[in-house]
Amino acid sequence: MGSESDLKIAEKGISILKDMGVEFEVRVASAHRTPDLVEEIVKNSKAKVFIAIAGLAAHLPGVVASLTTKPVIAVPVESKLDGMDALLSCVQMPPGIPTATVGIDRGDNAVLLALEILALSDEELSKKLEEYRKKLREKVINSDKRVGELYKH
Amino acid sequence: MGSESDLKIAEKGISILKDMGVEFEVRVASAHRTPDLVEEIVKNSKAKVFIAIAGLAAHLPGVVASLTTKPVIAVPVESKLDGMDALLSCVQMPPGIPTATVGIDRGDNAVLLALEILALSDEELSKKLEEYRKKLREKVINSDKRVGELYKH
Amino acid sequence: MGSESDLKIAEKGISILKDMGVEFEVRVASAHRTPDLVEEIVKNSKAKVFIAIAGLAAHLPGVVASLTTKPVIAVPVESKLDGMDALLSCVQMPPGIPTATVGIDRGDNAVLLALEILALSDEELSKKLEEYRKKLREKVINSDKRVGELYKH
Amino acid sequence: MGSESDLKIAEKGISILKDMGVEFEVRVASAHRTPDLVEEIVKNSKAKVFIAIAGLAAHLPGVVASLTTKPVIAVPVESKLDGMDALLSCVQMPPGIPTATVGIDRGDNAVLLALEILALSDEELSKKLEEYRKKLREKVINSDKRVGELYKH
Amino acid sequence: MGSESDLKIAEKGISILKDMGVEFEVRVASAHRTPDLVEEIVKNSKAKVFIAIAGLAAHLPGVVASLTTKPVIAVPVESKLDGMDALLSCVQMPPGIPTATVGIDRGDNAVLLALEILALSDEELSKKLEEYRKKLREKVINSDKRVGELYKH
Amino acid sequence: MGSESDLKIAEKGISILKDMGVEFEVRVASAHRTPDLVEEIVKNSKAKVFIAIAGLAAHLPGVVASLTTKPVIAVPVESKLDGMDALLSCVQMPPGIPTATVGIDRGDNAVLLALEILALSDEELSKKLEEYRKKLREKVINSDKRVGELYKH
Amino acid sequence: MGSESDLKIAEKGISILKDMGVEFEVRVASAHRTPDLVEEIVKNSKAKVFIAIAGLAAHLPGVVASLTTKPVIAVPVESKLDGMDALLSCVQMPPGIPTATVGIDRGDNAVLLALEILALSDEELSKKLEEYRKKLREKVINSDKRVGELYKH
Amino acid sequence: MGSESDLKIAEKGISILKDMGVEFEVRVASAHRTPDLVEEIVKNSKAKVFIAIAGLAAHLPGVVASLTTKPVIAVPVESKLDGMDALLSCVQMPPGIPTATVGIDRGDNAVLLALEILALSDEELSKKLEEYRKKLREKVINSDKRVGELYKH
Repeated sequence: MGSESDLKIAEKGISILKDMGVEFEVRVASAHRTPDLVEEIVKNSKAKVFIAIAGLAAHLPGVVASLTTKPVIAVPVESKLDGMDALLSCVQMPPGIPTATVGIDRGDNAVLLALEILALSDEELSKKLEEYRKKLREKVINSDKRVGELYKH
Repeated sequence: MGSESDLKIAEKGISILKDMGVEFEVRVASAHRTPDLVEEIVKNSKAKVFIAIAGLAAHLPGVVASLTTKPVIAVPVESKLDGMDALLSCVQMPPGIPTATVGIDRGDNAVLLALEILALSDEELSKKLEEYRKKLREKVINSDKRVGELYKH
Repeated sequence: MGSESDLKIAEKGISILKDMGVEFEVRVASAHRTPDLVEEIVKNSKAKVFIAIAGLAAHLPGVVASLTTKPVIAVPVESKLDGMDALLSCVQMPPGIPTATVGIDRGDNAVLLALEILALSDEELSKKLEEYRKKLREKVINSDKRVGELYKH
Repeated sequence: MGSESDLKIAEKGISILKDMGVEFEVRVASAHRTPDLVEEIVKNSKAKVFIAIAGLAAHLPGVVASLTTKPVIAVPVESKLDGMDALLSCVQMPPGIPTATVGIDRGDNAVLLALEILALSDEELSKKLEEYRKKLREKVINSDKRVGELYKH
Repeated sequence: MGSESDLKIAEKGISILKDMGVEFEVRVASAHRTPDLVEEIVKNSKAKVFIAIAGLAAHLPGVVASLTTKPVIAVPVESKLDGMDALLSCVQMPPGIPTATVGIDRGDNAVLLALEILALSDEELSKKLEEYRKKLREKVINSDKRVGELYKH
Repeated sequence: MGSESDLKIAEKGISILKDMGVEFEVRVASAHRTPDLVEEIVKNSKAKVFIAIAGLAAHLPGVVASLTTKPVIAVPVESKLDGMDALLSCVQMPPGIPTATVGIDRGDNAVLLALEILALSDEELSKKLEEYRKKLREKVINSDKRVGELYKH
Repeated sequence: MGSESDLKIAEKGISILKDMGVEFEVRVASAHRTPDLVEEIVKNSKAKVFIAIAGLAAHLPGVVASLTTKPVIAVPVESKLDGMDALLSCVQMPPGIPTATVGIDRGDNAVLLALEILALSDEELSKKLEEYRKKLREKVINSDKRVGELYKH
Repeated sequence: MGSESDLKIAEKGISILKDMGVEFEVRVASAHRTPDLVEEIVKNSKAKVFIAIAGLAAHLPGVVASLTTKPVIAVPVESKLDGMDALLSCVQMPPGIPTATVGIDRGDNAVLLALEILALSDEELSKKLEEYRKKLREKVINSDKRVGELYKH
């Protein structure tokens, strides 16, 4: 992530990673204040997937993507302009260098997308993702029941 | 893709797929006009990665993502409002069901992102992607030379 | 509605339904987390009109509309980007599959629109709607008097 | 519609109305230039559903809605600002007076929505709408085949 | 104004009117809930200038403008979408029927604009406006001094 | 106007002025390139109403308004960003210094608004404005007839 | 700055100026309420660089730029519309009269940009800026360590 | 500039540089396709001011700014979304690393801003800038005359 203040967004995803038992590393490195640190991290990393979290003119995902051909997931963070600046800075990449952008402040979805990618070659993880979906589903079904009770005639 | 009119966007990516020699299938199925066809395609597909291309209230990527835990890449297509409607409909997914959104009309980047994902378990493809980047790089360097000539004092 | 958190928006309309004595059912079903539940509800429902309430990339109204030729009213909910994402996801439907979108967070107007539709074949309900309008009118006229008093010279 | 220049948008819907054999009347009346004509039309009309088509600060749908408790469908027309001005002027109605807004320039969907409403008490029309959907569906399936041929390996 | 809730915006201007000793009337009338009341007020009013204050799809200024050839000043009120909906609904009037739109929530500037208009045939009022400007000017100059003190080296 | 290129917008209004036989002066002066010319024009002018036409960061109306307590009408011109930059630069004036903003590129409405202001103390002009409205009205009624013919069953 | 209320934005930069030991003057002058004061300040100032801070239709930077060929830095301030109005009013200057716009509410970056300009002919200041960057860098590296500790497995 | 396609924007400024006789170098280097080339150019350059021109998620200015404490001027280029993506990616820089953003496609103003910066220590250039302003002024005055002739009564 570009700044320690993005931690609250990252944490939505970190708890999923822990639950799934998937190895990860959390780093803070700013595309603008520490471009060399970003380069060092990306070039030395053994990560299969990168998640870059940043606000404002969110260049971090693009800078990471420029340094690797591994998939790079971008999480735009709301700070000014409701996060529209970060969203456009993340998603509107030029031809040739893609980022995979998720919704504003969606640290959770960034991790789930990373897991979907990793699960392509990890049967067990794939099952865990199916489980996760089932739980999401059950939660909605329970909501549906609860609300149904509430408005029974 | 949601409509045959999205073909021009898809073709930017299809030519890359052909060059890279990666197997693919191109289908037309509308989330709104043929929800069952979308379901049938996604559920029967052996694809490792899905790319969904759609304009306006672009629901296709989200609908595909709701039917699989495989990675789903979303390409918003410009049609009205400069494509802002499609971009937001693609990227602002609720927690739990991610899509990987690329830039407006970026069929090329969608395919490159898919290839980056597939390359995680395909050494040869990984090399091809490195090659592709090198060519992009050379193209820029050639531009730089050409422009340098042009403005030599 | 797509999530239990949309209940506060739904309740603006539910109280009108109760006052008007019109039968209704409130269900929670997510287009992305429980597409089959949405399908089951829509296909088995005897509702004459559907109201779909959702935020972010609000696909629920479109998904409901893809499953029925009954009128589907869409209520975009403010969550990120002041609700602009939900508004565009609701309203910018492709040709052939309409939704009837009301204003952001306007659960009340969604119900009133549904009642206007039902009143086409229900004389009594039509009169109740006229009554409702009269009360709105009286409220404004009372405001006008109160404010007139306040600023009398 | 608010101006004769909206005719091209209206015509998308008129051809559907003709195909379906549903009675309709097309009128031009401006909320701002002829408020009395709007009032006269709405108050004397025997229409079950109104469709109001307008661009810019598109007040026509709201003005019609203020004069009737029949359903009023709003079609925002692109003229300036990509039609965002018309969209917001149509959809952001105050509590109590709903309009049913469809997508920018979607004269076709406005008519289809009107037909869905009328079909609630017209079995035959309901079947025609099902037919219409089937044809939409077939068109997509044909597209799918055509495109499939095109990219067969 | 369209609703009693706009009173806080109106009051910014009312206090100026009182200070300037200019006659005025404050009325509440909704373009959508009480179109006839709006018509009655405008048609019977002896006002030289109208100020219409409204939020959301702010049709009130346009409706007033459609009923008179007196100048109509529009004050868009922030309610949803940061007031962008109200601004566009106020300002984007079709050719032939102008409104004079001031900034979002600027009840004060609406009154000052009205006074500038009235002052064209009222020497005394014209002087009062000059005085008002002088006071604004002095306030800035005092701010400048205060801040100058604060940051003297 | 801020630049000769705004002439096409001005001309929409100039022809109305000529038709109405109202005296006017057309000047080109840029708030940024010739601030002293703007000041000279405004301070020496005997105009009762100013109309300032400008695009981009359209400061001209605000600069004129800062130099006079006469009414200043602002016409935002579309150049970049669909004219949204000019609209916001015209309309979002700080408290104390109002401008009367009309729609994007609406040189015609600017003149009509100016005429409405002048007509407050010019009976004859007032009648001409009523005439103008009648003609607008007739044009709509003729459109209505023409369209009615077109779609007679 | 255009108003004393912008002081909180200015102060982000003032503390940097003090730390760097660079001479500065803080003035309040409104482009709209005190155009002559702005002119007086700019024309008599010996400043090498101007920083203009303003919200809403932020004309101050443009007005300053129209009065000098010294560099003028613009700081748009968030007040309405998330500061988008101020941003566009600052940055969209017509050809010939540039302003150097920094991010919304970025009084700190405005000062740093001014210092970068001054450092072109001030070796010592240049070193201080390098130092400042190093500290920014260290802060990020410390964040990185702290966060690393937090998520060690 | 980030791509040879930005040349048309650059050329607006290059002709000014040539007219002023100021030394410059034009380079093409993409922040995303050739990050090392960007670094090489910036680190080896003897430029006093950098101008970075880029469209879409325009990271080039920010990347340049991260590599130098020299002033960096950003020119957002219109490509998608009317250039709003590029504008926000250029201007919304995080605290500590400023860019000096000019208007969308304003290659001319970028060069003029650079010249204003260089003129701080170059008397002769300063005079040329004054001359340039005079010519702009004369052009407006000539426009004013021409238009005055056109509309003489």
